[in-house]
Amino acid sequence: MTADGDAPDVRDVFGVMERQRACREFTEEDVSDELVARVLRAATRAPSAENSQPSVFVVVRDAATRAAIGGLMRRAWEGGARRYSEGRLDPALLADVDRGATETLARAPVHVIVGADLDRCLPQTVGSSVFPAIQNLLLAATAVGLGSVLTTLAVTQAGELRRLTGLDERVEIVAVIPLGWPVRPPRPGVRRPLAEVAFRETADHPW
Amino acid sequence: MTADGDAPDVRDVFGVMERQRACREFTEEDVSDELVARVLRAATRAPSAENSQPSVFVVVRDAATRAAIGGLMRRAWEGGARRYSEGRLDPALLADVDRGATETLARAPVHVIVGADLDRCLPQTVGSSVFPAIQNLLLAATAVGLGSVLTTLAVTQAGELRRLTGLDERVEIVAVIPLGWPVRPPRPGVRRPLAEVAFRETADHPW
Repeated sequence: MTADGDAPDVRDVFGVMERQRACREFTEEDVSDELVARVLRAATRAPSAENSQPSVFVVVRDAATRAAIGGLMRRAWEGGARRYSEGRLDPALLADVDRGATETLARAPVHVIVGADLDRCLPQTVGSSVFPAIQNLLLAATAVGLGSVLTTLAVTQAGELRRLTGLDERVEIVAVIPLGWPVRPPRPGVRRPLAEVAFRETADHPW
Repeated sequence: MTADGDAPDVRDVFGVMERQRACREFTEEDVSDELVARVLRAATRAPSAENSQPSVFVVVRDAATRAAIGGLMRRAWEGGARRYSEGRLDPALLADVDRGATETLARAPVHVIVGADLDRCLPQTVGSSVFPAIQNLLLAATAVGLGSVLTTLAVTQAGELRRLTGLDERVEIVAVIPLGWPVRPPRPGVRRPLAEVAFRETADHPW
């Protein structure tokens, strides 16, 4: 599907899904408020349990706050997450995540801290009510050319994130999403084929 | 963005997000394998923690299995979920969910049972690794005109769902997604404005 029969339609939903990739290194160029609002609005369109809409978004641009969040990521990574990932991740991805957690993610000009308002949903519906919104946000970012990545590392440091953002105890912190312009085009994504992950009627009949 | 300057581009990612709505009543018309494969492939493109790709999809068309899943939804709904929702949901949504759980959802020609393979991810990363795939599936369904809805009611009856689908104990059951052709166009979605859910720098500065 193309706009003029020639240039590919970069906003086609299937094309955007194919292009979505984790970006962990960003240029210094800023992201306009208009674009941030656009990806946030996309997030708000996602479904939630009982349409409870518990998602809360804090958009951080302040350099000191971003540096502090970067420090939390580094602490979580070096304090245990790296050890868990070593030997499990392929070396290229491990190196990428390692550089991201210790250095490059913090340089994204915008960080979106995503939480769930527990006055609007049960703890057991946080996942089904917030991650669809996060996925809309990431797809919208991809559609407009922004780099983004879903990170949950800093969530282990929720108390510090609350102190930095003013979110209170009734907001469960779910993710931190760095947003910015990618330094380089992403590598192609590697995905398991349908025959490995989908089944007909029962789990013994691969698609 | 339009394909010919006239007809709206129905696959524009932002337009699809605006149109996505829970569908709980389906015609008897079947859904082709080709379309099912298309929405499943879209699901596989979503990000997951460490690219672990733990999502598993069982596509159920068998009438007896669908009726049994419908029975599980009804049991979960009448056994407590309805009581919890009464007085919290607006009456129109409550009536819709009530009819869905007791009657209309089971008539969708396809049910996709979505699980997380715990040999591929930690229990605490199931949400961040599976709901983005589910959201891709729902958006893809919307793009091609299918009705769909993210339900987690039957998950409380995981043992029975395992017996019906052959998924073993190492697969955490996350959702059941009925798919089919909608009986009627959806009502417009109601969403909180950005100024209520988004903040600048800290939670005391609304967007």
